[in-house]
Amino acid sequence: MVTTPMITRIQAGKRMSQVVVHGNTAYLAGQVAVDIGADISVQTAQVLEKIDRLLAAAGTDKSRLLSVTVFLTDIRSFAEMNAVWDSWVPADASPARATIQARLANPAYRVEMQAIAALP
Amino acid sequence: MVTTPMITRIQAGKRMSQVVVHGNTAYLAGQVAVDIGADISVQTAQVLEKIDRLLAAAGTDKSRLLSVTVFLTDIRSFAEMNAVWDSWVPADASPARATIQARLANPAYRVEMQAIAALP
Amino acid sequence: MVTTPMITRIQAGKRMSQVVVHGNTAYLAGQVAVDIGADISVQTAQVLEKIDRLLAAAGTDKSRLLSVTVFLTDIRSFAEMNAVWDSWVPADASPARATIQARLANPAYRVEMQAIAALP
Repeated sequence: MVTTPMITRIQAGKRMSQVVVHGNTAYLAGQVAVDIGADISVQTAQVLEKIDRLLAAAGTDKSRLLSVTVFLTDIRSFAEMNAVWDSWVPADASPARATIQARLANPAYRVEMQAIAALP
Repeated sequence: MVTTPMITRIQAGKRMSQVVVHGNTAYLAGQVAVDIGADISVQTAQVLEKIDRLLAAAGTDKSRLLSVTVFLTDIRSFAEMNAVWDSWVPADASPARATIQARLANPAYRVEMQAIAALP
Repeated sequence: MVTTPMITRIQAGKRMSQVVVHGNTAYLAGQVAVDIGADISVQTAQVLEKIDRLLAAAGTDKSRLLSVTVFLTDIRSFAEMNAVWDSWVPADASPARATIQARLANPAYRVEMQAIAALP
């Protein structure tokens, strides 16, 4: 017998849900900063804060991140993004990650992150 | 004992498969429009139609989408893509989503979508 | 009773892990070439070689790839990347795939690939 994992949605909007949980895996929508006028360091911190809150809402945390895709409006901000990332990510539980440059929905956004995490 | 989920491929080509199902999760290849000369609205509708058909072939449907990544050739077509998306996506079962601008394999493609869905 | 899949990390660094295995699914970090001065064919071959080695470390292989996202610095190298890909990918076990153009962390990188694979 095959058991069907449940689908649960968090902050479910008509266009998208901020988190969709399927069985033991949580898929997060692309997260952007609240303060779109802020510099890359502040925006990165705000994105990571949002990810923390969404993971908590899904009953998990950053130590169970599986994969993160980082979109930077300007790839030259790679080092600045990494400085904030490195101080946030658990050194003994880091996810797989890929970083590319991409123009985002609002030109003032400097960074967007798309994450997949496990539930405990 | 650990059970190993089966892998099933749909429209399996030598280069890629249009869908790969692993256990209860279906991974779709990036979908593009059939009519590459069409405008963003028509191309978006055609991409979503292709996704519908692939999900059906995998035994599931758009109410079980987990995550969608949208690539737009020109991010300024964001609102037009969203208009078609919003009328298609189930308002009570929307997936996580991220949208970025990216040049695609054929310069005439205006949108490509990469989706992950659950099986019922 | 719900069983919780284990998380295992391979080549786990403080910033990211090269592979994160969750249950029967392996998430690979974005892979780039070793020889960043090389042309697209050589870089593609080196990326695929790295993927082979990471999959082996996770106890699986390219016949169980589920989804691959290909980032090309210049989309005009699509055909050259595909030539190397086509001779590498198992013709009867190809993954879902999407390819977009994106500037990468180092301007000398011509290709980066992000993969998800199943464990046997």
